[in-house]
Amino acid sequence: MDDRTDNLSVVVHGPGDLRLENYPIHEPGPNEVLLKMHSVGICGSDVHYWKHGRIGDFVVKKPMVLGHEASGTVVQVGAMVKNLYPGDRVAIEPGVPRDIDEFCKIGRYNLSPTIFFCATPPDDGNLCRFYNHNADFCYKLPDNVTFEEGALIEPLSVGIHACRRGGVTLGSEVLVCGAGPIGMVTLLVAKAMGASKVIVTDVNSSRLERAKECGATFTLLIDKESPKEIVSKIDSLFGNKPHITIECTGVESSIQTSIYATRPGGTVVLIGLGKETVSIPLVHAAVREVDIRGVFRYCNTWPMAISMLASKLVNVKPLVTHRFPLEKALEAFETSSRGEGLKVMLKCDPDDQNP
Amino acid sequence: MDDRTDNLSVVVHGPGDLRLENYPIHEPGPNEVLLKMHSVGICGSDVHYWKHGRIGDFVVKKPMVLGHEASGTVVQVGAMVKNLYPGDRVAIEPGVPRDIDEFCKIGRYNLSPTIFFCATPPDDGNLCRFYNHNADFCYKLPDNVTFEEGALIEPLSVGIHACRRGGVTLGSEVLVCGAGPIGMVTLLVAKAMGASKVIVTDVNSSRLERAKECGATFTLLIDKESPKEIVSKIDSLFGNKPHITIECTGVESSIQTSIYATRPGGTVVLIGLGKETVSIPLVHAAVREVDIRGVFRYCNTWPMAISMLASKLVNVKPLVTHRFPLEKALEAFETSSRGEGLKVMLKCDPDDQNP
Amino acid sequence: MDDRTDNLSVVVHGPGDLRLENYPIHEPGPNEVLLKMHSVGICGSDVHYWKHGRIGDFVVKKPMVLGHEASGTVVQVGAMVKNLYPGDRVAIEPGVPRDIDEFCKIGRYNLSPTIFFCATPPDDGNLCRFYNHNADFCYKLPDNVTFEEGALIEPLSVGIHACRRGGVTLGSEVLVCGAGPIGMVTLLVAKAMGASKVIVTDVNSSRLERAKECGATFTLLIDKESPKEIVSKIDSLFGNKPHITIECTGVESSIQTSIYATRPGGTVVLIGLGKETVSIPLVHAAVREVDIRGVFRYCNTWPMAISMLASKLVNVKPLVTHRFPLEKALEAFETSSRGEGLKVMLKCDPDDQNP
Amino acid sequence: MDDRTDNLSVVVHGPGDLRLENYPIHEPGPNEVLLKMHSVGICGSDVHYWKHGRIGDFVVKKPMVLGHEASGTVVQVGAMVKNLYPGDRVAIEPGVPRDIDEFCKIGRYNLSPTIFFCATPPDDGNLCRFYNHNADFCYKLPDNVTFEEGALIEPLSVGIHACRRGGVTLGSEVLVCGAGPIGMVTLLVAKAMGASKVIVTDVNSSRLERAKECGATFTLLIDKESPKEIVSKIDSLFGNKPHITIECTGVESSIQTSIYATRPGGTVVLIGLGKETVSIPLVHAAVREVDIRGVFRYCNTWPMAISMLASKLVNVKPLVTHRFPLEKALEAFETSSRGEGLKVMLKCDPDDQNP
Ligand SMILES: NC(=O)c1ccc[n+]([C@@H]2O[C@H](COP(=O)([O-])OP(=O)(O)OC[C@H]3O[C@@H](n4cnc5c(N)ncnc54)[C@H](O)[C@@H]3O)[C@@H](O)[C@H]2O)c1
Ligand SMILES: NC(=O)c1ccc[n+]([C@@H]2O[C@H](COP(=O)([O-])OP(=O)(O)OC[C@H]3O[C@@H](n4cnc5c(N)ncnc54)[C@H](O)[C@@H]3O)[C@@H](O)[C@H]2O)c1
Ligand SMILES: NC(=O)c1ccc[n+]([C@@H]2O[C@H](COP(=O)([O-])OP(=O)(O)OC[C@H]3O[C@@H](n4cnc5c(N)ncnc54)[C@H](O)[C@@H]3O)[C@@H](O)[C@H]2O)c1
Ligand SMILES: NC(=O)c1ccc[n+]([C@@H]2O[C@H](COP(=O)([O-])OP(=O)(O)OC[C@H]3O[C@@H](n4cnc5c(N)ncnc54)[C@H](O)[C@@H]3O)[C@@H](O)[C@H]2O)c1
Ligand SMILES: [Zn+2]
Ligand SMILES: [Zn+2]
Ligand SMILES: [Zn+2]
Ligand SMILES: [Zn+2]
Repeated sequence: MDDRTDNLSVVVHGPGDLRLENYPIHEPGPNEVLLKMHSVGICGSDVHYWKHGRIGDFVVKKPMVLGHEASGTVVQVGAMVKNLYPGDRVAIEPGVPRDIDEFCKIGRYNLSPTIFFCATPPDDGNLCRFYNHNADFCYKLPDNVTFEEGALIEPLSVGIHACRRGGVTLGSEVLVCGAGPIGMVTLLVAKAMGASKVIVTDVNSSRLERAKECGATFTLLIDKESPKEIVSKIDSLFGNKPHITIECTGVESSIQTSIYATRPGGTVVLIGLGKETVSIPLVHAAVREVDIRGVFRYCNTWPMAISMLASKLVNVKPLVTHRFPLEKALEAFETSSRGEGLKVMLKCDPDDQNP
Repeated sequence: MDDRTDNLSVVVHGPGDLRLENYPIHEPGPNEVLLKMHSVGICGSDVHYWKHGRIGDFVVKKPMVLGHEASGTVVQVGAMVKNLYPGDRVAIEPGVPRDIDEFCKIGRYNLSPTIFFCATPPDDGNLCRFYNHNADFCYKLPDNVTFEEGALIEPLSVGIHACRRGGVTLGSEVLVCGAGPIGMVTLLVAKAMGASKVIVTDVNSSRLERAKECGATFTLLIDKESPKEIVSKIDSLFGNKPHITIECTGVESSIQTSIYATRPGGTVVLIGLGKETVSIPLVHAAVREVDIRGVFRYCNTWPMAISMLASKLVNVKPLVTHRFPLEKALEAFETSSRGEGLKVMLKCDPDDQNP
Repeated sequence: MDDRTDNLSVVVHGPGDLRLENYPIHEPGPNEVLLKMHSVGICGSDVHYWKHGRIGDFVVKKPMVLGHEASGTVVQVGAMVKNLYPGDRVAIEPGVPRDIDEFCKIGRYNLSPTIFFCATPPDDGNLCRFYNHNADFCYKLPDNVTFEEGALIEPLSVGIHACRRGGVTLGSEVLVCGAGPIGMVTLLVAKAMGASKVIVTDVNSSRLERAKECGATFTLLIDKESPKEIVSKIDSLFGNKPHITIECTGVESSIQTSIYATRPGGTVVLIGLGKETVSIPLVHAAVREVDIRGVFRYCNTWPMAISMLASKLVNVKPLVTHRFPLEKALEAFETSSRGEGLKVMLKCDPDDQNP
Repeated sequence: MDDRTDNLSVVVHGPGDLRLENYPIHEPGPNEVLLKMHSVGICGSDVHYWKHGRIGDFVVKKPMVLGHEASGTVVQVGAMVKNLYPGDRVAIEPGVPRDIDEFCKIGRYNLSPTIFFCATPPDDGNLCRFYNHNADFCYKLPDNVTFEEGALIEPLSVGIHACRRGGVTLGSEVLVCGAGPIGMVTLLVAKAMGASKVIVTDVNSSRLERAKECGATFTLLIDKESPKEIVSKIDSLFGNKPHITIECTGVESSIQTSIYATRPGGTVVLIGLGKETVSIPLVHAAVREVDIRGVFRYCNTWPMAISMLASKLVNVKPLVTHRFPLEKALEAFETSSRGEGLKVMLKCDPDDQNP
C-alpha cells in the first residue's frame, strides 16, 4: 500500500499556467496523517485559479497545488494521532482551523480568518499522489462508501450547510436557482431533509434534465424574462411561494428573483458568488421578513454526510460524469472548464482507478 | 353528496358503556363547515375512554362522541368561510383554540388551556356521519391523497411534532422506544426528515417486524434486561449513541433507558404517558446536557403533512390493518382494544367505504 | 368616566389634507371593547400619510383616522369579552389579524396579509376620543405604568422585535444606525437585553446627544464619509466589530455601512425603510455569513414590554418631548414634521391631560 | 513582576487531607502561558474534594492541587502564543479541551469527554503561586475589571450558561431555587439579561436577605411545605407562573417544585446536582411541554462576561465575603465549609492582596 515512488502534483503557477510536477513527500507532523490520494474532484474554483490566478482577494503569488474535494488512504500516522490507523480509507475536510479563536469556540470554524484551506492561496491542496492533513479533519469511510463518494462530500457539504442555514425540513417547499454541481447537491440534500417540493432553474436545458433525473419536482428554463416574470411562473408551477430559496448562480438577476420568489417569513440562502455589489429589492425582503443568509463553505458536515451516504439516503454517484488519471490532469481541467458534464474526477492512485 | 338521512354517532356514556346513537345534525356556525365524515381511526385514547371513562383528570361526565383522527367532505359552509367549498375533501385538525391567548399568539396553540379538542371531555369527537368543525382547522386534501391518509395525519402529527422538538435532521441517529402506532409514525417521520439510522425497541416481536418493514435500521426486542443492559445492546448495534431518543411507551424503565441511551448534548423526547411520578437518573441527563422535552399533541403540522403525503415522501398506508363500517363500531373497538394490528379505521360514509 | 359627548377624530383625506372631525361612536362588537382614548403618539408614518397621502403601495383612498401608538380606558365591553372590564387602563396593539392563517398559526401574525392595522389604509386608527378595538389586543396596564408609557409600547415594540430578530443578548456589542425615535427605542431595548456596548450614529448631533443621555456607550456623527471610512471609525471606537447592527435610517449608504461594520457570523437587522432597490455589497455579507434580516412591525411584544416597564427595566419617559391636547392636533403634526424633539403626544381625554 | 521564589500550592491528598506544599514551577509549553496567580475563589467542589476525596465518579487517587475560579498575571509566554504578553492580567477558563472532537467542533466543548479541567481529578487546579495554562483559555482583563471580578467569572459563567440554556431574555419571569453562590450569580445574570421579575427561594433567611439586596423581586423562605404548597405561594407572589425556573440546590423536593412551578411551554434548568436518581412528576412536565435542561459547567462565556463586567452591567463584588492570604488556605477552607458568607477568596500574590 505504501509505495512512495513519486508525488505527481497539479500545480498552478499563475493565470493559465498549470503544471504537473513531482513534489517531495514529507513525514506527517504529530497531529497529521500521510495520505495516499485516491479521488479528487475538480471544482469551479480550481478552474478559476488556473484561468485567472485569483479569486477576489485570494491571489496565487507562489506555485500552489490545486484540489480540495478529496479522499484517500492513510499510509502513516503522526505521533499524537489516536483516531486513525494506516489502511483507513478517509474523506478529507479541506478547511482546518489554525487558531482556537472565538469562531472555533462557538462551532463556526469556517469563519475563522486564519483557517488553513486546501487550494486557497497560499495553502496547497491535495491533487497529488501523497498528502499530509490534520488527522482530526480526516473521517473514516465505512466499507459501503466509495472513495468518490468520499470526495463528493466536499461539494455535498456546501449543500448541507446551505440547507441547514435555510432551515430546510420536512415539508419545505424549496427553490434552487442554478443546476450546476452546487445546485445539484443542494437539490439532493433538500430532498433528503424532507423537502416536499423542489423547483430548479437554469439557463441550460440539459442541466435541467439532469436535475429532473435527480428528483426535482419542477424545473424552469430561464431565458430573457424579468425576475418578476420568472416569479409568476414559479408561483403557478408551485401553487404557492417557496419557503426557502437557495441561490446557486451568483447572477444578479437570479438574486433578485430569489427575493421576489420567497414566501413571507422565509429565507433566501446565498451560495452563488458574483459581482461585489448588487442592486436588490431589499425593502421587499425586509417588510416580509424574508431573511438573507450567506454561506461560506461549511462546518460540521462530514460526519453526517458519511452517515447519510452509508445509509443510502442520498445518491451522489450520478454527479460524476468524467474520470481521468492524475497524469491527464490538464485534459481533465480542459474538460471541466468547457462545462461539459457535472463533476470531473481525477484518479490519483495508479493502482486503483475505480470509483 | 349531501344526503343527510341519519347521523349515526359512536358515543361513550361512561366506563364500558359505548353506544351507537343517532345525533341531530346542526347547521354550521359562521366560521364552521358541515362535514360528511369518511374515515376515522380509532386511537388508544378512544379505547381508554370507553374502558375507563377517563384519562387522568379528563373524566367523561356526560355522553361524548368519540373520534379525532378523521377526514371527510365539506357539504355546507358557514357564512364567513372563505377557504373551503362544498365538495372539498378535507383532513380535520381536532384541536381548535377557543381564545387568542398568549399561547396562540406565539404559535403554540396546543398549549392553550381552553382549547377545544375532539373526544376529550367534554368536547364531542367526529366518529359519526355528519360533523361541524372550524373551517380554519380543516385542510383541503389534494386528489392524490386518500381519505385514510387524511385521517392518519392526526397520529402522524404526533410524530412530526416530536421529531421537530427533538431536532431530527439530516444524519440524525435516532432511538424510538415502542413500536405501537405512535412509535411507527415517529419512525416514518424521522426517516423522512433525514435520520440516517433508527433503532426501534418493543417487547412485542411482531410489532418489531412491522417496524423493520417500515424502514427501521435495527430493532431490539426488550425482555427482562435492565435499562443499562439495554443501552449496551443499543450501543453495540448502533456503533454510537443516538443523538435523539423518542420515548413512545410511557413505561418507567423505558424512560430510564432513554436517558442512559442518549448521546451527550442530545435530546430525549417524551411522547409516551405513563404513571404520574417516575424515578429517573436525572443527574445523568443534566451533566451530559441531554434535554428532556415533552410533547403535547402537536401544532402547525397539517399543511406540511399534506405536502409530504402528496409528494409520497412517506407511506402511511401500511399502518391501517383493519377496516369496519361505522355500523360495526363496537366490533371495531373490540378489535382495537385486543391490540391486534395497528390502526383500525371506521368507514363513516355508507356510499364510499374505500380507503 | 363614560361621558360620550363627542368623538373628535384626526382624519386624513388626502395629501396635505388633515381635518379634525366628529365621528360617530359605535357599540363594541362581541369581541371588542370601547375605549376612551388617553394618549396617542404621532409616528413618522402618520406624518407621511398626511403629507403624501400614501406610503408605498398603501394609498389613502377614503378618509382615514390616523394614530396607532395609543392607550386608553375601557368604557364598555362586548358580549364575549372575558379579559377586560370597564375602568381597565390598557395599551393597544394596533395590528389585529383578521384570519387564522398560516402566519397566525405559527405565531408570526404580523406577516398575515389580511391583518387589520390602525391607520394603515383603509383601516382607521385611534387618534380620537372613543375607539373600538379587539379585546385580545388590549393589554391591561399596571398602576405603576402611565398612559404615555402605554402608548410608547408601540414604538418600543419595534425595538424589541428588532433586537429579538438580531439575537441581542448578554454581552452583545451593537451598532444602531440612526437616532430618531426608532433608533432610540432600539438603543434602550438593546441595553435592557444585556448589550454591553452600543454605538449610535446620526447626521444630527443633537439627536446623538440625546442618545448619549439614554445610555449609548459611543456616538458617531456622520458627515460625508464613505461607508468604509465610517466603519474604520467604529472599529477604533469599539475595539472590535459589532455583533449586531440595527439599521434605523433606511438610507442606502447607512445600509452599506451596516454590512461592512458587522462581525463575521453576525446579523444586520433592517428597520429603516428607504428606496425600493438598493445597491449593496452582498458578497461581503454572504461570505462572512452576516445575516440580513428585516423587521415588519412586531408580534408578541406587549406583555413583555409591560412587564419591563412595570419593573422599571427601561425608561421611555424621556422620549416624549412635546404634548398637545387633541384639539390642537394640526399644530402637533406641524411640530412633529419639523423634526423637533422626538415624540409628540396627543392628549385625547379633555379631563386628564397628565402623562 | 516575575519573582519565582516559591510555588506554595493547596493540595488535597485524600478525604480530609489538605496540605500546603511547595510545587515545582515549569516552563510553559508552546501554547501555554505561565501565570502568577492573584485571586482564587473557593468553590463548593473544592470543599467537597477535601472533605470526601471524591465527587461522584471523580475520585482523588493522587495528590491534586485545588482551585478553578482564578485570575492572575502572565509572566512568560510559550513559543507559539500570539494573543498574550508578559504583564497581561487575565481571567482563566479552567476547562481546556484536549481533543478536537465532535463536541468541540460544534462549539459545545464543555461536553468533550477528554477535557482538561482544573481541580477535577486527575487534573491539577490553580490554587498556587505559579501556574501554566493554555493561552487560548486565558482572557485579558481590561483595566477597569479587578482580579477578583476576573476570578468570579467562573461561577458567573455557570449562571450565564444556565440563563442561556433557559432562554432568559427581556421580560422573562424567573424562579431561582437556592441562594448559594450559584443561585446568586444566576439571579444577577438573569436580571442583566432583561428578566423583569425574579423570585428566589432558600431555606436560609440570611441568604435570602442577600438575594434581596442583589435585586431579587421576591424571596420565599422554604420551610416544611410540600412542592405544591410552595408553588401556590409563588403563584400568588408572582401573579403568574414563571417562564423559566433555574434549580440551584440539587434537592429532590426543589426539583419537584421547579416542575410544578413553571409555565406551560417554559423551561426548567437544572444546575444543582443531588442524588443520582430522583422521583419527579415527569408527565406534568411533558404534557405542558416544560423542557428540562441540564447544565454542565459552561462554554463560550468568558468574552461576554468580561464585556459585561467592563460595562458595569453586573456587580459581582458583593459576592466576596471573606479574603485570606494563600498561606492561610486551611483556615479559608474551614470558613467556606461552615457556609458562612458566600464566596471566600484566596489571595495568592504576597505583594498584592487587593481585590
Ligand atoms: N459560498 C460558498 O462557500 C460556495 C462554495 C462553492 C461554490 N460557490 C459558488 O456557487 C456557485 C455555483 O457553483 P457551481 O460549481 O455549481 O457553478 P456552475 O457555474 O457550474 O453553475 C452555475 C449554474 O447556474 C446557471 N445559471 C446562470 N445564470 C442563471 C440564471 N440567470 N438563472 C438560473 N441559472 C443560471 C448556469 O447555467 C450554471 O448551470 C458559484 O457562484 C460558486 O462560486 C460558493
Ligand atoms: N403526548 C402526546 O400528545 C401523545 C399523543 C398520542 C399518544 N401518546 C402516548 O404515546 C404512547 C404510545 O401510543 P400508542 O398508541 O403507540 O400505544 P401502544 O400501547 O399501542 O404502543 C406502545 C408500545 O410500547 C411497547 N412497550 C411496552 N413496554 C415497553 C418497553 N419496556 N420497551 C419497549 N417497548 C415497550 C408495547 O408493546 C407497545 O407496542 C402512549 O403512552 C400514549 O398515551 C401521547
Ligand atoms: N420596519 C418597520 O416595521 C418600521 C417601523 C417603524 C419605523 N420604520 C422605519 O424606521 C426608520 C426610522 O424611523 P424614525 O421614526 O426613527 O425616523 P426618523 O426619520 O425620525 O429617524 C431617522 C434618523 O436617521 C438619521 N440619519 C439620516 N441619514 C443618516 C445616515 N446616513 N447615517 C446615520 N443616521 C442618519 C436622521 O438624522 C434621523 O435622526 C424609518 O425609515 C421608518 O420608516 C420601520
Ligand atoms: N451543573 C454544574 O455545572 C454546576 C456548577 C456549579 C455548581 N453546581 C451545583 O449547584 C448547586 C449550588 O451550588 P452552590 O455553590 O450555590 O451551593 P450551596 O450549597 O452554597 O447553595 C445551595 C443553596 O440551596 C439552599 N437550599 C437547600 N435546600 C433548599 C430547598 N429545599 N429549597 C430552596 N433552597 C434550598 C441552601 O440553603 C443553599 O443556600 C450545587 O448542587 C452544586 O453542586 C453545578
Ligand atoms: Zn469546491
Ligand atoms: Zn389520537
Ligand atoms: Zn409607528
Ligand atoms: Zn466552581
